[in-house]
Amino acid sequence: MTGRFITLEGGDGAGKTTQAERLSAWLGEHGRTVVRTREPGGTDLGVRIREIVLHERGHVAPRAEALLYAADRAHHVETVVRPAVARGDVVLQDRYIDSSVAYQGVARGLGADDVRAVSDWATGGLVPDLTVLLDLDVLVGRARVAAARGDTFDRLESEAAAFHESVRRAFLDMAAAEPERFLVVDASMPADVVQQAVRAAVGPLVGIDQA
Amino acid sequence: MTGRFITLEGGDGAGKTTQAERLSAWLGEHGRTVVRTREPGGTDLGVRIREIVLHERGHVAPRAEALLYAADRAHHVETVVRPAVARGDVVLQDRYIDSSVAYQGVARGLGADDVRAVSDWATGGLVPDLTVLLDLDVLVGRARVAAARGDTFDRLESEAAAFHESVRRAFLDMAAAEPERFLVVDASMPADVVQQAVRAAVGPLVGIDQA
Repeated sequence: MTGRFITLEGGDGAGKTTQAERLSAWLGEHGRTVVRTREPGGTDLGVRIREIVLHERGHVAPRAEALLYAADRAHHVETVVRPAVARGDVVLQDRYIDSSVAYQGVARGLGADDVRAVSDWATGGLVPDLTVLLDLDVLVGRARVAAARGDTFDRLESEAAAFHESVRRAFLDMAAAEPERFLVVDASMPADVVQQAVRAAVGPLVGIDQA
Repeated sequence: MTGRFITLEGGDGAGKTTQAERLSAWLGEHGRTVVRTREPGGTDLGVRIREIVLHERGHVAPRAEALLYAADRAHHVETVVRPAVARGDVVLQDRYIDSSVAYQGVARGLGADDVRAVSDWATGGLVPDLTVLLDLDVLVGRARVAAARGDTFDRLESEAAAFHESVRRAFLDMAAAEPERFLVVDASMPADVVQQAVRAAVGPLVGIDQA
């Protein structure tokens, strides 16, 4: 079996967890070993780093935060992702470098190229075989998140809306720049329809014939 | 008063702490406000990062460790060093980017240019006004460290000796490449003599007339 590294990207509420669960089940049914993981926090070290970032949020210098995420990523790639791919497993990962570029690089203004360069160095240049971008209107995504929490959702206050619009735009720009790596799916469609689109792209990569 | 940023570099046992203490006292006698700090660990965040690195030593991917130090540095520069320099203080710092380049970049083989680039990004390009390199024979330095601990010192085992020789050589190469920033002092001289050399370089920078 050839190992594969597949990442899922998109804003909160776009359905990354649901799609990863269904894809993982399908891959398992076809005899593939799946490693589901995420950043930040996919290793013990990552959990400790995540605690620092969340605990001190608001007091951490923005570049320090970006470097902490990059440190988590370096450790995670070396100890989890690369060994799994080398064993022939399929790694399904929630968020990777593209998220850092979109959130820290673009929306927070640290610079897309700089943030990508730091992460490329962190990972030794490990690029996913496929990145699934679940694209969704920002207000719809935030409403889904609120509903999942049992909150009512009025409207996103404007600063947050502009931030998340910026993130969405950054993801779409990256997908346009690397169309051979990205699959962009309209995440407003029913989850079953989204999943069919994902399987159609993943099948050939992992040797599953869907005919 | 014009703020200044002065760093002390060199291997263990070279006398960085002693020299910083004496320099700090002298600057204080001349009416300058001194901020003594160090990396890693000069902030609350840095202490937590340092705990992670030390606690997990041996299990942290090398690039992750370098990025953790860079994160500490980003936070430390933004919250401690830059504000102090802006106030007109003299910052005396034990270790900075040159240490990362020497230890992680050269001696551990992560690449001097890459490690420096990450730290330059972390700090927004903050360069010291003066870097004092306390240069010392590796075996002499290790013997001093052992004596301070109350150990007897036989000889450094060869792998460790090669590592520390590589660090020493890296520092000297950096000093040769930036002679206007570095003061290289022979740290085998008596501490008083070393301190006189340091004061001779620092005095003009901070407006202290030693004539």
